[in-house]
Amino acid sequence: MKIIEVNKRVLEKNDDIASRLNQFLHDREILLVNLLGTPGSGKTTLLERILERVDIRKVAVIEGDLYTDSDAKRIENFGVRTIQLNTCGACHLEASMIQEAIHKLDLNGIEVIIIDNIGNLVCTAEFKLGEDKRIMVFSVTEGNDKPLKYPLMFQTTDILIINKMDLIRYTNFNIEDFKKDVWILNPQCHIYECSAYHNEGINDILNILFPLSE
Amino acid sequence: MKIIEVNKRVLEKNDDIASRLNQFLHDREILLVNLLGTPGSGKTTLLERILERVDIRKVAVIEGDLYTDSDAKRIENFGVRTIQLNTCGACHLEASMIQEAIHKLDLNGIEVIIIDNIGNLVCTAEFKLGEDKRIMVFSVTEGNDKPLKYPLMFQTTDILIINKMDLIRYTNFNIEDFKKDVWILNPQCHIYECSAYHNEGINDILNILFPLSE
Repeated sequence: MKIIEVNKRVLEKNDDIASRLNQFLHDREILLVNLLGTPGSGKTTLLERILERVDIRKVAVIEGDLYTDSDAKRIENFGVRTIQLNTCGACHLEASMIQEAIHKLDLNGIEVIIIDNIGNLVCTAEFKLGEDKRIMVFSVTEGNDKPLKYPLMFQTTDILIINKMDLIRYTNFNIEDFKKDVWILNPQCHIYECSAYHNEGINDILNILFPLSE
Repeated sequence: MKIIEVNKRVLEKNDDIASRLNQFLHDREILLVNLLGTPGSGKTTLLERILERVDIRKVAVIEGDLYTDSDAKRIENFGVRTIQLNTCGACHLEASMIQEAIHKLDLNGIEVIIIDNIGNLVCTAEFKLGEDKRIMVFSVTEGNDKPLKYPLMFQTTDILIINKMDLIRYTNFNIEDFKKDVWILNPQCHIYECSAYHNEGINDILNILFPLSE
């Protein structure tokens, strides 16, 4: 019981910071995107495919990890402004961490900031980070039962990207059943299909991030 | 700061319950196994392949899920004594929940109790559940970088089962590099390879659970 009360207080405080951060970025016409998904769903690989196609001066990336900076190094190779956030083992990012990261970023010319969140289908969904859009990356190898097992993640995402479509033929994943379950939880959810590894289906996703300039 | 202190108190209390639970089961010569891994790594499918091969009167299963009972229903189909634990959205199981579940189980004739944990690479690793062995299920589609990104999970597992070996040829997963990283973190870790979906490599894993009777 105690834990739940503490969590509630933590979440309320977090939502307040997230709301102010969103306003701060909105005033500067910067879009904040929260990229979520399970470990290995392909978030960072998808991000690499996106960065190959955009004007990198307009993008910044905040990399969330428990300890390492390997993903931040992958992203920095593209010449993009990158901030590494290490949680020292904690399972989620909080809005105050994003606030601190953004205050360290040179925002000059930035149109989109992408948060590459920690791989987790539970805790990350609970914490608003000030984002305008949530994009969840889900791979076909994760199985059909996940929307109903991890509903909050699917309920709170604006966009769902089904990744590793190249592997679907080797699995028992039923994409139509999967989409039905997602839309029961979240009728407004936009769903895209891609293979980040094979660089397929990326352009449609670009239009979400840069609807005017691309 | 506050959160970390609360977490510490929660973990200490949890470890105490876990230790007493382990002694309770040890006195009754019952082995408690904690099956962990990311969502979609194949824990429940592997469990089904194991249950097909054993005397089900000797096994009980505790299914951990956020809300659903779909995995418990899959396991009950085998005629195995099954307890469903729903955490109502919380990201991990705690020893007190396992204690409660075990007190509701008829332990007569049981040799092994398997906990099918919530899909999560972070929080579940922090909570001891009174287990004698931790078995982590990891699928080749999750990528090579995971041991260093989620070290506690890999450090605390006794056995690591690399699943979905049938898909390895379609990925860039390097199994030798992966094993090296695991053994740097956890030199004692036993590693097995299988494809639960294709029913391959299961017998070696059986010997971990039933070393004498199989």
